[in-house]
Amino acid sequence: MDLSSKLRHIADFPRPGIDFIDISPVLQDGEVFQYSVDCLLNELDGVDFDKVVGSEARGFIFGAPISYVTGKGFVPVRKKGKLPCKTISACYDLEYGSDTLEMNRDAILPGEKIVIIDDLLATGGTVFANIKMIESLGGKVEKILFLVELRELKGREKLKDYPIQSIIEL
Amino acid sequence: MDLSSKLRHIADFPRPGIDFIDISPVLQDGEVFQYSVDCLLNELDGVDFDKVVGSEARGFIFGAPISYVTGKGFVPVRKKGKLPCKTISACYDLEYGSDTLEMNRDAILPGEKIVIIDDLLATGGTVFANIKMIESLGGKVEKILFLVELRELKGREKLKDYPIQSIIEL
Repeated sequence: MDLSSKLRHIADFPRPGIDFIDISPVLQDGEVFQYSVDCLLNELDGVDFDKVVGSEARGFIFGAPISYVTGKGFVPVRKKGKLPCKTISACYDLEYGSDTLEMNRDAILPGEKIVIIDDLLATGGTVFANIKMIESLGGKVEKILFLVELRELKGREKLKDYPIQSIIEL
Repeated sequence: MDLSSKLRHIADFPRPGIDFIDISPVLQDGEVFQYSVDCLLNELDGVDFDKVVGSEARGFIFGAPISYVTGKGFVPVRKKGKLPCKTISACYDLEYGSDTLEMNRDAILPGEKIVIIDDLLATGGTVFANIKMIESLGGKVEKILFLVELRELKGREKLKDYPIQSIIEL
């Protein structure tokens, strides 16, 4: 199946100059969604890991099925202020200013092996924030998987010390 | 497995007087997460449906695995301004004021049978907004599933015309 043909390109969203990649058609078609999750699962063949980390909100859509199928715990990374217990936080840069992500402090135990799942790799800022939190808690990032990678934004360079795999490269 | 014992009750979050139900321990333990999704899947035995609708953000965590396992398309309901194409929207009441949810106009075809999945039924406002959008697009709500239902908030009364099932009642 040619997954890249299922993506919708939206010019100038959310701001002029941005070519937004809309994954809705992948999600809305049950067969295509299954196939996309199976592609990510294939990349985990032989990978030994304890937990899956996914970021609010689209990272949940791919991370949660992978957590379910593999039987590994799911760690949601949330926007600031959503998690009620003790959290660890990390900032990431936006085009103007920055934003903060949070993770439960009890979500990852020292020595646990972690897989990060996200829908899209752009500049790599949110994933890098995830890595900082995981490593602060003593976890080890075993693999980072994306459905889509936007190569020209060079997120891969920012994450060069980590094993990255993407299913669709644009 | 006693799923209710896995929930964490947080007093006065996000505001004084609110007893927040934290599902993080259910997610973070792979075995418990699998069991919780399986409980939801069991409720779909014999239900004929075409698509799964889940709301940003925690609805994605349960809706996406169910979409994956059943092979039915996943329709994410997003906060206002997140979806780049033509959307339908619905307002829902918050304690002070209201907020708006959106769904792609092409997400549901007339006559399609829909299952709504969410983590928690409180007053039922967000789910009712989902129903309005689904029905505006010509879809039919076949079943609404929650992991947790807070009975004293009487969301069930608001949704009395629809088949609701919750796994944990508090």
